[in-house]
Amino acid sequence: MADIRVAGYPYRVEFARKPSLLEIRDAVNASLSSFSAKECDYLRSIGSELNPVADAMHQFITDSGKRLRPIFAYVGFLGTGASANQSIVNASAALELVHVCALMHDDVMDGSDTRRGAPSIHRAFEALHNRESLQGSAAQYGISAAILLGDLALIWSAKALHTSGISDETLIRAQAMYDEMRIELMAGQYLDIHEGALATQSVERSLKVARYKSGKYTIERPLHFGAALGTSKTADSHSELQRVYSSYGLPLGEAFQLRDDVMGVFGNPEETGKPAGDDIREGKRTVLMAKAFELISPTEAAVLTSALGNPALSVTDVERVRAIISESGALDQLEHLISGLTDQAVTSLDSTVVHPDARDLLTELATVVTRRKS
Amino acid sequence: MADIRVAGYPYRVEFARKPSLLEIRDAVNASLSSFSAKECDYLRSIGSELNPVADAMHQFITDSGKRLRPIFAYVGFLGTGASANQSIVNASAALELVHVCALMHDDVMDGSDTRRGAPSIHRAFEALHNRESLQGSAAQYGISAAILLGDLALIWSAKALHTSGISDETLIRAQAMYDEMRIELMAGQYLDIHEGALATQSVERSLKVARYKSGKYTIERPLHFGAALGTSKTADSHSELQRVYSSYGLPLGEAFQLRDDVMGVFGNPEETGKPAGDDIREGKRTVLMAKAFELISPTEAAVLTSALGNPALSVTDVERVRAIISESGALDQLEHLISGLTDQAVTSLDSTVVHPDARDLLTELATVVTRRKS
Repeated sequence: MADIRVAGYPYRVEFARKPSLLEIRDAVNASLSSFSAKECDYLRSIGSELNPVADAMHQFITDSGKRLRPIFAYVGFLGTGASANQSIVNASAALELVHVCALMHDDVMDGSDTRRGAPSIHRAFEALHNRESLQGSAAQYGISAAILLGDLALIWSAKALHTSGISDETLIRAQAMYDEMRIELMAGQYLDIHEGALATQSVERSLKVARYKSGKYTIERPLHFGAALGTSKTADSHSELQRVYSSYGLPLGEAFQLRDDVMGVFGNPEETGKPAGDDIREGKRTVLMAKAFELISPTEAAVLTSALGNPALSVTDVERVRAIISESGALDQLEHLISGLTDQAVTSLDSTVVHPDARDLLTELATVVTRRKS
Repeated sequence: MADIRVAGYPYRVEFARKPSLLEIRDAVNASLSSFSAKECDYLRSIGSELNPVADAMHQFITDSGKRLRPIFAYVGFLGTGASANQSIVNASAALELVHVCALMHDDVMDGSDTRRGAPSIHRAFEALHNRESLQGSAAQYGISAAILLGDLALIWSAKALHTSGISDETLIRAQAMYDEMRIELMAGQYLDIHEGALATQSVERSLKVARYKSGKYTIERPLHFGAALGTSKTADSHSELQRVYSSYGLPLGEAFQLRDDVMGVFGNPEETGKPAGDDIREGKRTVLMAKAFELISPTEAAVLTSALGNPALSVTDVERVRAIISESGALDQLEHLISGLTDQAVTSLDSTVVHPDARDLLTELATVVTRRKS
């Protein structure tokens, strides 16, 4: 897939051989860019008032992003042994637009100022309100815009799937998994905000949030969705494939979320696109935090508690919290847990039901999504 | 459809004769209630933390609501001359869940405290946060919950359509219109918040907002969606039917929105479920307001400007604003516009391409959605 032409359909893509992860990502990016450009043209045709919406949507959709969910969907499809084509790329790419909705709405819910190093959508529209000296509350305008743009992303996702070019029969099959994935995501998001509002932390509850919010949504369900885009030789081998994808996807999804927890405290801002120690300032109830609370002294717990959710935390304060968590042994325990879950995921791939090309890519992905970055 | 059993599928519904609008609404209500009950059971099965989400979703979905969009979809289907069945009721009902999303998110965007006489979703979850003495900002918790519940409603809508029981072929046909309707809705919502933030009012711009936010979304597109659920005798008669639906739906949709504008200022709280003069307190940029500004003196304009968007307005203040708008002649002009648009809609039904049963119902609906209520 080296020579993709981004300008428009159809791309010239090499589907005959096993692609690299980078090639899959490039193909997904090209599909998203093409879809978004067309939809943005339509928005602009309604009225020039919608130009900022089109600009923001297109920039957000085409600006970087790891494209994990489309990649897992695509590899999930390859696991069936069926031959890929541009329609499968397009259908896989549709999952990224669900994620765009989740990110835009998440930033409103968390009150996050930045996303991928740029202003979050509600902040960008707040700035537009100020720049154009509009009436009323700029903050409220920003929030309203971010809600609507997120809704639009969710609707665009469905349209991208509907117009992907897959057969009607395939679409009907994939939609059931698509719905399931989106419902689980929203349930997980609510579990997350609810957990954040409880007075105490719990490792068990945090793990459950990680499972719904990220485990199922990032890896297991995209794999299932991808498998539904293909067809296995028999119904038995299809359900065996879905079972293997669960055995791989659930532990790896948890490990992925745990890595995200570690990055939220110890990550490098250049890597995360967020300020250092952002999870501390936001007071996120992660498994890492819950583990730390289990292990530290009451004095340290008091320091940690007062730091969590304090947006004015200095770099020195963040360093102090990092030291407490690290010296408690919680970080080591988390690294151990991440390795264990990743091993468990990779071991479960040892099944002939998964096409060897997909097995290789999934093994590589297990490392990619859980590797240390700091 | 007199003897619908609400408990579960399949209902015993009389589909052989022309239903009344009330019977259609009852069938839609039964479908929504059954769908919501099943999905709520699933949410509860994930964890008891989701019980408040399930309770709030079910109550919001089953509590009254005029069900205009499902009714127009159902009547749009009848217009094709095809025979209805439970699947068509279910597919039509799916449109109501898009509306549930729009209402939940709209209330966050407008900062509305109430909806249909009950607390709006963000206020209900803010109250839950206070009641259970949760940590952090109760207001932010309420907003986050309302964003997620709205997202969930949008996803449930798609699932309700996918599982409605209509044939795969019909689903594929209807989905194109379904996507179009949802994209136009979100574009219209943005036009609305943008219009509200401009320094000046304009009748022309307000009419455009009314067209996108409500005209197309409430009437024209549901009719098109309903037509797509059926099949006409020939492709020509199908496109002629869609054309008649536009000629009827666009003016009637605008008239409907204009009636809503009038109700927002002059409506009875018992009828609207909102405090008297709510549009004035919220500073809504409606066609009614824009017309008034065209007609009043600078002194009156100053009074109106200071009243718009003032949440602390007294009943006397509201009365004063009402008098200004009414005496300006803007109210009469709006009533005249509403009658004209309604007549235009009804006249356009004079086509043999619409099945007579649907023509009767659409004529009745034109009166129902635009009649004076105060």
